[in-house]
Amino acid sequence: MLSKTRLANVMDQLHSNGAEQMLVTDPVAIFYLTGKWIHPGERFLSLLLKQGQKPVLFLNELFRFEEEIGVDKVYITDTTDLVAVLKQYVNPDGVLGIDKQMAARFLLQMIDAKIAAGFINSSIAIDHVRSIKDETEIELMRHSSLINDQAMVQFKALIHEGVYEDEVAAQCMGIYKALGAEAYSFDPIVAFGANSADPHHMPDHTQLKEGDTVLFDVGCRYHDYCSDMTRTFFYKKAPAAEHRNVYELVKQANQSAEDMLKPGIELCKVDAMARDIITDGGYGKDFTHRLGHFIGIEDHDFGDVSAANHNLTAAGNIFSIEPGIYSTKQIGVRLEDLVLITADGHEVLNHYSKEIEVIE
Amino acid sequence: MLSKTRLANVMDQLHSNGAEQMLVTDPVAIFYLTGKWIHPGERFLSLLLKQGQKPVLFLNELFRFEEEIGVDKVYITDTTDLVAVLKQYVNPDGVLGIDKQMAARFLLQMIDAKIAAGFINSSIAIDHVRSIKDETEIELMRHSSLINDQAMVQFKALIHEGVYEDEVAAQCMGIYKALGAEAYSFDPIVAFGANSADPHHMPDHTQLKEGDTVLFDVGCRYHDYCSDMTRTFFYKKAPAAEHRNVYELVKQANQSAEDMLKPGIELCKVDAMARDIITDGGYGKDFTHRLGHFIGIEDHDFGDVSAANHNLTAAGNIFSIEPGIYSTKQIGVRLEDLVLITADGHEVLNHYSKEIEVIE
Repeated sequence: MLSKTRLANVMDQLHSNGAEQMLVTDPVAIFYLTGKWIHPGERFLSLLLKQGQKPVLFLNELFRFEEEIGVDKVYITDTTDLVAVLKQYVNPDGVLGIDKQMAARFLLQMIDAKIAAGFINSSIAIDHVRSIKDETEIELMRHSSLINDQAMVQFKALIHEGVYEDEVAAQCMGIYKALGAEAYSFDPIVAFGANSADPHHMPDHTQLKEGDTVLFDVGCRYHDYCSDMTRTFFYKKAPAAEHRNVYELVKQANQSAEDMLKPGIELCKVDAMARDIITDGGYGKDFTHRLGHFIGIEDHDFGDVSAANHNLTAAGNIFSIEPGIYSTKQIGVRLEDLVLITADGHEVLNHYSKEIEVIE
Repeated sequence: MLSKTRLANVMDQLHSNGAEQMLVTDPVAIFYLTGKWIHPGERFLSLLLKQGQKPVLFLNELFRFEEEIGVDKVYITDTTDLVAVLKQYVNPDGVLGIDKQMAARFLLQMIDAKIAAGFINSSIAIDHVRSIKDETEIELMRHSSLINDQAMVQFKALIHEGVYEDEVAAQCMGIYKALGAEAYSFDPIVAFGANSADPHHMPDHTQLKEGDTVLFDVGCRYHDYCSDMTRTFFYKKAPAAEHRNVYELVKQANQSAEDMLKPGIELCKVDAMARDIITDGGYGKDFTHRLGHFIGIEDHDFGDVSAANHNLTAAGNIFSIEPGIYSTKQIGVRLEDLVLITADGHEVLNHYSKEIEVIE
């Protein structure tokens, strides 16, 4: 059902951006506002928001549903003159906010037909509101991460002599489902040894060997909300001095960045805190990505923790803190938690230990 | 490596559409032209095609690769002024073809900065070329469907008393992989009884019972090329007269539509052939979707077999023929093959029997 609070917040933001009407195209944003998932594939789907009016949902006949969700529905078909229909609802004298996701095949038609006086990318209005989680969302995010903590214990237990990465990965979904999750938030990354030095490694038929690092970057969905955590273990042998040093640097970067979190901090400063520690330790060039990303209904929500982001943290933000050191073809260590910004500080949503652990 | 033939064909089509330059955004189209898969997520990726010039690939630094693929590479980062970079390569006095998939967040910037004299959706140039499969593609499509035929035998063998839809679906990937496929072309549809009357049913925890229909709508990828086939079985009991009639109507619709295929037939007439048979049999309103869709690197390539499509079949086209009858809450029967249009007729790529089969 349409959330009046979320809608009102979005309309306020939209107004600040100079528009009083917007076509929301992203199925995730439509779910966020209405509680209804519609996956239109290549077909047109948009929710028209207009100041002071009931939203209008344009959707293909193929996705017809009877449920009342607090919006007016306008059905179209594959042969409908889309622009003619939109003209009946869009104010031609106003600027029309466009969803950043809208495909060019629809947008170019609207521009050619001049259905509005101007077109602007106004997704930030929704993205901003989505970046401030409400109480319902925070509860779901907490529970999703709790499942992830519990799952990590079971993932670790899958590690034994001679096991393959893809063999381990294939068992993750069953573990999540048994713990009450409904899906992955992304395909699990299980990486042994040198593979852990590739931040985007996909599990393959690599076999575990003594001395390997074992990296799990994993997450699930609980009532549509995502978790995302990384832990790096060692197999059979405690790490030698250099690898221990790498691990401790990453841990210190993770911990120091988390410790500083509260409302009103520039996100680039959080990135800098972690990056400086790793750089001072001599591994700056081996930390090859941003420190973190926002998360919610999407594994990667809008917003990140990077050198380029000068926005301030705000109560209700949830993002990852995931420093890593990747020494090509040797070792990769990453430690990642999700963190919620609270009214006066922060709450780390993951509780699985970050101490060095050797799997026997 | 860049296919000079495919590129030349696309440039010819583009020229007919009134443009001499185009930004190709769709990763599938980029793979089709260059043989290289790049999945940019939310980041900008485009291949600039210009008449008589080497294509230029704009991609994020994160997706850097050394391999020579016959294009110039221009790396950008998350903080690059994208429009400034594009201006160095795009002819500002010419029309710029835009990929139908391009996201509004990029397109609106280009329009605002007037990087070209006009913007048109020119995806049809690529879609048209992709709809005519070359010999390499035809071989891969044949093999992908051959695997699908072999897999259907094994899927049927998973059916036994008390089995659940999701239990069967979970075993499909293993069967495909053992047969040499690399992935699903779409998540398998396994539907028992009344569930088979929902054309989009996703396997759930429904348990098989005597007298159920058992519908498999399944496909795999072989060297990136998709298969897609549907068969409907009966479990333990031969169908009663009405259901037998439904089955035979669907089979006749499927067969008659396939039989008429050769180059130069209006696609809407193929749809009409199947639809008229089902309508004359009294089930017109229960055949709720178009007869078929084109297929290739994507399970749903551009183009369909529907009442709205007046285009003519051409040698090299490959599409599905998939009539169905869905009597709400009772029975659903669909029979689907992929068919290739040849120089003087057609070749059905699936060979699994379409006769009524009762699984004991």
